[in-house]
Amino acid sequence: MATINQNFLNLKESYLFSDIAKRVSAYQEAHPEAEIIRLGIGDVTRPLAPAIAEEMARASLEMAKAETFKGYGPEQGYGFLKRAILEHDFAARGVSLSEDEIFVSDGAKSDCGNFGDILGADNVVAITEPAYPVYIDTNLMAGRQVKFIECRAENGFLPEVPDFKADILYLCSPNNPTGAVLSKEQLRAFVDYANANGTLLIFDSAYEQFISDGALPHSIYEVEGAKRCAVEIRSFSKTAGFTGIRCGYTVVPHELTARDAAGNEVPLNRLWNRRQTTRFNGASYISQRGAAAYYTPEGRAQCRENVAYYMENAKLIARTVRGLGIPAIGGDNAPYIWMQCPDGLDSWSFFDLLLERAQVVGTPGVGFGAAGEGWFRLTAFGTQEHTARAMERFTNLFGK
Amino acid sequence: MATINQNFLNLKESYLFSDIAKRVSAYQEAHPEAEIIRLGIGDVTRPLAPAIAEEMARASLEMAKAETFKGYGPEQGYGFLKRAILEHDFAARGVSLSEDEIFVSDGAKSDCGNFGDILGADNVVAITEPAYPVYIDTNLMAGRQVKFIECRAENGFLPEVPDFKADILYLCSPNNPTGAVLSKEQLRAFVDYANANGTLLIFDSAYEQFISDGALPHSIYEVEGAKRCAVEIRSFSKTAGFTGIRCGYTVVPHELTARDAAGNEVPLNRLWNRRQTTRFNGASYISQRGAAAYYTPEGRAQCRENVAYYMENAKLIARTVRGLGIPAIGGDNAPYIWMQCPDGLDSWSFFDLLLERAQVVGTPGVGFGAAGEGWFRLTAFGTQEHTARAMERFTNLFGK
Repeated sequence: MATINQNFLNLKESYLFSDIAKRVSAYQEAHPEAEIIRLGIGDVTRPLAPAIAEEMARASLEMAKAETFKGYGPEQGYGFLKRAILEHDFAARGVSLSEDEIFVSDGAKSDCGNFGDILGADNVVAITEPAYPVYIDTNLMAGRQVKFIECRAENGFLPEVPDFKADILYLCSPNNPTGAVLSKEQLRAFVDYANANGTLLIFDSAYEQFISDGALPHSIYEVEGAKRCAVEIRSFSKTAGFTGIRCGYTVVPHELTARDAAGNEVPLNRLWNRRQTTRFNGASYISQRGAAAYYTPEGRAQCRENVAYYMENAKLIARTVRGLGIPAIGGDNAPYIWMQCPDGLDSWSFFDLLLERAQVVGTPGVGFGAAGEGWFRLTAFGTQEHTARAMERFTNLFGK
Repeated sequence: MATINQNFLNLKESYLFSDIAKRVSAYQEAHPEAEIIRLGIGDVTRPLAPAIAEEMARASLEMAKAETFKGYGPEQGYGFLKRAILEHDFAARGVSLSEDEIFVSDGAKSDCGNFGDILGADNVVAITEPAYPVYIDTNLMAGRQVKFIECRAENGFLPEVPDFKADILYLCSPNNPTGAVLSKEQLRAFVDYANANGTLLIFDSAYEQFISDGALPHSIYEVEGAKRCAVEIRSFSKTAGFTGIRCGYTVVPHELTARDAAGNEVPLNRLWNRRQTTRFNGASYISQRGAAAYYTPEGRAQCRENVAYYMENAKLIARTVRGLGIPAIGGDNAPYIWMQCPDGLDSWSFFDLLLERAQVVGTPGVGFGAAGEGWFRLTAFGTQEHTARAMERFTNLFGK
């Protein structure tokens, strides 16, 4: 009989956000009248920028004409999108990359897991904790040993270079779930560590558009030497409201290598290209046209407005929570507020209390790993109306 | 230093269709005046059905309004699409499946490779040969032992049940590249073999819409017992012109199991759901709306016209090639014609000869495995004008 990938049995039965969804719908069923406000899963609520939606509508209709129909596109993404990415996301910040170092995909979540396909099962993986569960689960699925770099409240939940040797290390800045952001100097410490130890850094900068502090880096390649040790994963999901449209990209510099069993250095760009051309057929043409429209002056202006809208929420949440005397970080350069659960509650108890007493849904910190126990994530992606109402309920519940 | 997935070194350097593209562009560069006709890669050329394009344009604009904006969808696909699939692709053929047995994805190519993620590396894989290269390459990437079921000219290139025990077995009918189609009885032999040996069948029916013979099965679930041993992978690429839109789906019946190391049977539906929710974020909402529009009366009528258009090409190619005394199969219930290379030429020599002497691009049979050596694939997906011109050139070149 065919065998399963045994590593799947090392996973928890279900994914964090499915657990939350189940508890919320059970509550809603028992209390049909309850008006639940969701500040849990990091899904956006603002409609798509008109410049992007209109461009996708145009691209859709273009497909119905023989002269402009598009079949298979390049698995790595269309040049029109890759050139816009190079110019706006990198050249504008002094980073020079070439078109064939950019791989457009159906989203950062896919890339996060898929990149492991080209890496050995024997690598020791370091993951900063609390962390986006996909980093951990996809490595457990591949049978890799995972070690954690615990981030602590006393250090603002910023990760430090590990005191052990990691072959692969995940970094997310601005961080999901904590909202903490690495400075250029802090990022440099990781790049130096990686180059000294032969570590592959997987840098997730899905939230870079939420940075308002001009001194903070948006790309790891702003740090000297990063092209020799890091891939960078980007997303249009939060920046441009693409959670349902599906588009992201991964940068794999030509300089970046890993070793084969004989000790030879193999360029990861070549391996990733082989993986993508074999197991993927490119992102939807329409999604790619939409992503390209994000880089037009209108697209960027409209998306910046949405980011500003969410950051108003972030500031309101941070101000309210802190005003209630509850320790919290994030919300300045990230759409997440990471708050301590009041009264020493554990994360799931606080989740239940908040759902039952305030009908507000957040994400239990322990869902992002043991180091998140006793903490809780709130997202800024709700509507301003709902967010304001949720904060009123917070004040009623926790105000003295 | 991080290590690579060593199995990648067992792959040929590049993917078949990249090789072809390179030779063609080298030829075009040397002969800028040459009018090359491409009957090689299986990409469609007919524009999208207006009903589908218009629905995707509508869905795009819907995303720009707060009331109708859609964020993350279910990773398994939207109910509106799954219900249309169940009704038209299965219930209409007497097959009863439930919504949670359907997993919508960004395409059949992704599913073909990804499904292996939930299976052990110790499985022995049987692949009918010649075959779509993705079956072989993705299993080599996972480090699995691959054995071939050679299909031979004397048997019309139809595969037979293997005389060895396979844990996983790939079947593609109508076949890419040969155009051969398994009858219900022939399919039943594989289902019986699979249930007797605990073999998991991966049934690729991407081309089922090209079947014109009413007696031939479209789904493996038309055969009794198939739900206990088979997953089925479907594509909108050729049926509805979605090669650039990206949508497909995989059926994983609840009855289907594989065993863990302790010998327990684990439902593959549960494992695949865990894989998809962790490593995938759903297909684009717009692509799913487009796929659902395919199932409307207008969408189906328009797509059927496109299929009929391509099948005119298939008939012309088959008639021309056979009229020249060249042995060929396919083209009746499949968009591929599989012809023997004339004069005992090997596949790549014939590829070069055809490119140089007739400026026609096809696919060398050996690119689909050793059993394809001396054979050649032509696709019906060109325009009728180009296909007719290509056949004139064939007649000039090979006519006595």
